[in-house]
Formats: sequence, structure tokens, C-alpha cells
Amino acid sequence: MITQNVGGTVYGVILNDTVSLQKIGALDAPPYHGAPKAPALYIKPANTRVTSGASVTLPRGASTLEVGATLGLVIGRAAARLDAANALDAVCGVVLAADLSLPHASYYRPAIREKCFDGSLPIGEVLPLPDLSALVLTTEIDGKIVDQRSLAELIRKPAQLLADVSEFMTLAAGDVLLVGVRYQAPQAGKGSRVRISAAGIGSLEFSIAAEKDAANTGVKP
Amino acid sequence: MITQNVGGTVYGVILNDTVSLQKIGALDAPPYHGAPKAPALYIKPANTRVTSGASVTLPRGASTLEVGATLGLVIGRAAARLDAANALDAVCGVVLAADLSLPHASYYRPAIREKCFDGSLPIGEVLPLPDLSALVLTTEIDGKIVDQRSLAELIRKPAQLLADVSEFMTLAAGDVLLVGVRYQAPQAGKGSRVRISAAGIGSLEFSIAAEKDAANTGVKP
Repeated sequence: MITQNVGGTVYGVILNDTVSLQKIGALDAPPYHGAPKAPALYIKPANTRVTSGASVTLPRGASTLEVGATLGLVIGRAAARLDAANALDAVCGVVLAADLSLPHASYYRPAIREKCFDGSLPIGEVLPLPDLSALVLTTEIDGKIVDQRSLAELIRKPAQLLADVSEFMTLAAGDVLLVGVRYQAPQAGKGSRVRISAAGIGSLEFSIAAEKDAANTGVKP
Repeated sequence: MITQNVGGTVYGVILNDTVSLQKIGALDAPPYHGAPKAPALYIKPANTRVTSGASVTLPRGASTLEVGATLGLVIGRAAARLDAANALDAVCGVVLAADLSLPHASYYRPAIREKCFDGSLPIGEVLPLPDLSALVLTTEIDGKIVDQRSLAELIRKPAQLLADVSEFMTLAAGDVLLVGVRYQAPQAGKGSRVRISAAGIGSLEFSIAAEKDAANTGVKP
């Protein structure tokens, strides 16, 4: 079920929305002393990506997953040192994504183990770039709306985020930049069916299974 | 100069050798209270990889780079939940690598900005798996030996590291697992020529250039 539809590296960013900053409150304490001065990035490698319809297996020892509804900007050409004014020209489309994490109390940069387990990035098809300024992402678990977030809450807007990331790192065609997930996103457990949707760009669905229930993925030795 | 010779994701690990733990001393303090219980991983994405002979451009504002000599285990087949006893069967070869970082005092998980700038992973050709138990990596800067490290100092040996990482993450053919870099590796600045070598697996060379001196990489917009 692991897919390479989006062939490059997927980058995510934490602490990029006003709601998360309000929740944390402690941003006046070390090490941040306010919102991050530069994007606080992490990477979701290829093993994390699955398509809509996937069954995601809970990692050993986990009973729930945090479901971070987000949007990915798909890079259309090699892009270095973009200016925010025209950074979106390097984007060829968007994808809905569910950035799954093991629940964690810390708001420090997350551990690979918490963010990069197999199947931890259900991701949709590449769709044309919509108006991002106030796009609303809705998360449903078992048919009930548990979260709605507007991209209006982003601190570093998509174009600025692209500029700041590409300042030190060349993005390649097929790379994806997720615009951010909320701190302490809703949690879903074994058997849950999750749906993420946004007006005009459709939906992404997946379910969560315990290890013994998971279909054979063909990758176990 | 960015190369895709090794086509997958490159994973690295910090705090995996006795010399680093001795240097730090503070490992009795939070959050670790001793050596990490699980590998403390990071990722070097495709934009970081360059071949032997490359000129690496100092990121804006940096005057030196830390040069972490290390060895990469190249994965030969999809590998999940390997047992340490036969984990090396999933390895099809090794590469010499120089894991370059912006100098940083903290031994926490490094920021993407510090580890993933363009060209920050000069990497050699894939070579047959040698005896890793006491392989010595030598780092020379401008012809002078500045560091020698033996893989005998690794805490989590290569086979155990593969087992622990693949416990939650499926490694794909072409992925690379770096066995670890020393905390506070030697630093090299503008104009330096760096060489990393090991008996029986050849050498890897690169130089460091300031931004204005760098050849046009063709990726600037």
C-alpha cells in the first residue's frame, strides 16, 4: 500500500499556526521565546506515504494516533532561494494529507520514531492549486467532525514558508511541503475511519488497524 | 553536482558512540539520562547528496562546517522488522560519507537547517560490505589528519541499528543508514579540502567554498 505517487521528499513544519501557539502558551520559555524565527521542519520519508483508502497499522505499543490534517504544496520544478512574491510559481499543485504521529506531549521537534512509522502519511492525489488564504480543512473520525481549521491561521503563509525553506535547501520537482499541523491534533484509535476534506479539493480517507488485523503488506521479511 | 547515485532516503543517528557520550558528560541530565534508549535519528534528503570531488557551498552566514566522517549501510531490499542476527543480509554495500552540519553546541536532535543544506552529504560509491567491527575512518583537512575513529566505538552496532530502525520503519532498496557521527566533529572552513578514507574502501574528497566562489549549480531560479 506504500505509494510513490508523490516521488520526492515530504517536509513538514510544526508551530506554524496561531492556534498551536495559543495552546502551548509556554512559547515565552526556552528554547523558543516566541514563535520560531525559522521554520521548525521535519521530514516524512517514502515509507510513510500511503494512498487514500489505506489501512494504517498502529505501531507496536501504540493505541491511538494523532491525526494532523494538513495541505501539501507539490513542487513542480527545482526551486532554490525563492522570493515569497513569486514562490507559488514553483508549485504545481496541492495534496490533502493526514500527518500521523504517535501522541506526544512535547512541542519540541518530534522524534523520527513518533513521525515516520510506516503509513504515517496518508496523502491524496495532486490537484490544482486553490486559493489557500482561507481554505478550511475538516477532519472527521467515524463520521463525526472533530476538527476544522482554516489556513488563515497559518503564521508563515505558504509563499513565505517556501521562501524560507528554499533559502538553504533546494526543493526538487515532486517534493512536497506540508504547511503545518496543529499541536495536539485529534486522536484516532484502532478501528477508526478518518476522513479529511476541503471544499473544492475533495477528500482523503483511511482507517486504523491494530498490528494483528493489518493486511500483509508484503514488506515483512 | 547533486547526485542521486544512492536513490533512497538517507538516515543518520546521533549519540551512537562512546567517544561522543564521554564528551557530552551531561547525558545523566534530562532528557536522556544515559545513552538513548532508541536510535536518535535524523534524515538527509536528496538535496544534501553530492559525489566525491564536489565543491560544497557554505550556507549563508556560516564560516565553518562540522565534518562528520561516517559509513553508510546501503539497503539492498525492502526491510522491515529485521532481527539483528541477520540484519546485515539486507545490506548490499557500504558508502563512505561526510555528514556536514552547521556547528552547533546542543546535542539535541539537530535542526533541519543545521543538517540538510544543499551539498551537506558528500557520499562515495557503493562498495562491498567490509568487516565493520573495527574499521577506521580517517579525516584529513588540507592534507593533515584531524580525526580517526574506529567503528569499534559504536554503541549500537550496525546490525542492531538496522534492527532497531526497521522495527517501526520499512527501509527500501537504495535507502542508506549512516552508522553515526561523533559529537563535535572537526570543523573545516572556506577553501578547505577534505578527505575521508578507510582501509579497503577507498576515499571521498570534497572542498568547501564560500557562496560567491561557488560554481553555478544550475538550480538557482
